[in-house]
Amino acid sequence: MDERKSIPVPAAARLCAVYRLLCDLSAQGVNFVSSGDLGEALGIGAHNIRKDISHISGGGSGRSGYDTARLKKQIAEHFGLENEYRACVTGLGRLGQALVRDGQHIFKELKIVAAFDSDLNRVETIDVGVPVHPTYEITETVKRLNIDTAILTVPDPTAQECAERLITGGIKGIMNFTATHLKVKGGVTVRNIDLAGEFKILSALMFLGG
Amino acid sequence: MDERKSIPVPAAARLCAVYRLLCDLSAQGVNFVSSGDLGEALGIGAHNIRKDISHISGGGSGRSGYDTARLKKQIAEHFGLENEYRACVTGLGRLGQALVRDGQHIFKELKIVAAFDSDLNRVETIDVGVPVHPTYEITETVKRLNIDTAILTVPDPTAQECAERLITGGIKGIMNFTATHLKVKGGVTVRNIDLAGEFKILSALMFLGG
Repeated sequence: MDERKSIPVPAAARLCAVYRLLCDLSAQGVNFVSSGDLGEALGIGAHNIRKDISHISGGGSGRSGYDTARLKKQIAEHFGLENEYRACVTGLGRLGQALVRDGQHIFKELKIVAAFDSDLNRVETIDVGVPVHPTYEITETVKRLNIDTAILTVPDPTAQECAERLITGGIKGIMNFTATHLKVKGGVTVRNIDLAGEFKILSALMFLGG
Repeated sequence: MDERKSIPVPAAARLCAVYRLLCDLSAQGVNFVSSGDLGEALGIGAHNIRKDISHISGGGSGRSGYDTARLKKQIAEHFGLENEYRACVTGLGRLGQALVRDGQHIFKELKIVAAFDSDLNRVETIDVGVPVHPTYEITETVKRLNIDTAILTVPDPTAQECAERLITGGIKGIMNFTATHLKVKGGVTVRNIDLAGEFKILSALMFLGG
């Protein structure tokens, strides 16, 4: 466990991208792949790819190539990538609704089992394909349905409070679509997907000249 | 221009986050802020905040603090953050529809003026508040409406082709929601927001123990 945890987050992120590419290559019947091929497809240097893979795999040289199926299995086992997660979407604005309806398709291995919204009228009338509960039932529902992952799409000012209710219920991971920097206790992972912030960064880089 | 371009992308990204925080602080009437306050709110070390700001501002010590309005203006001017951009959403699946309908609200300074979809039936029947065109009209429409920014929400296999049509039309920046690593020419900026990939990373970090 200690050895696993020592992988830097950016390396873990790149290995997740490698895993997804290996899934595609497997499906296409490609049995063997070099670090150069992987790097080319992902826009990462071959040397970095080899270094990342060396974190999880002792033997085998990336220069001569990797067995697609074997490397895919190694990465999946190392990071539990084929485990199933049970999720809820919290906040049913347009983005939240799109994610609860399409989530099963976008996020494989993620089973969305509930949604929450603070608008009681919306809770009673909306049909998104999973049961919808009022936000004051978050903690109890998360606990009862054994939900471990939350997609957070509430308005920024309520994000921290919702996150705390989710965590009290037992949530271990949050995909945070709000602009709020969540304060969470140890053992809870947050991945920030700040769309407004991403656009600001895009426009800044466009202004600087691409 | 050279000096501006020399700012590393992660520093530019952090300064964009600082800018958005300064907007909130300004609105709350906070006139003075320290690097420690900024860092605390953003989950970044105060030292890094000071170093990032030093890229764009010669004088003023972050240790004693910054004038909120002045720093906000400096960052905005440096990165053109208050410029307006004209955008299109390409691909009207659920996520694309949510983004075209809510984009104006999520992305300030972004004016969504058109949308595209390959499904001619959808093009004729959907109402998302802006004109919808078939994808074969991308290049001509982007050129005619002077669109500079694209939100790309098409299925992965068509992403590269759509990107090329957009760029031929004059697009300078793409928010790429597909899992495809786009190959673009110089002068075009791509910001990848790969939701499926982000979930894989979240699940990997959850598995490693948060």
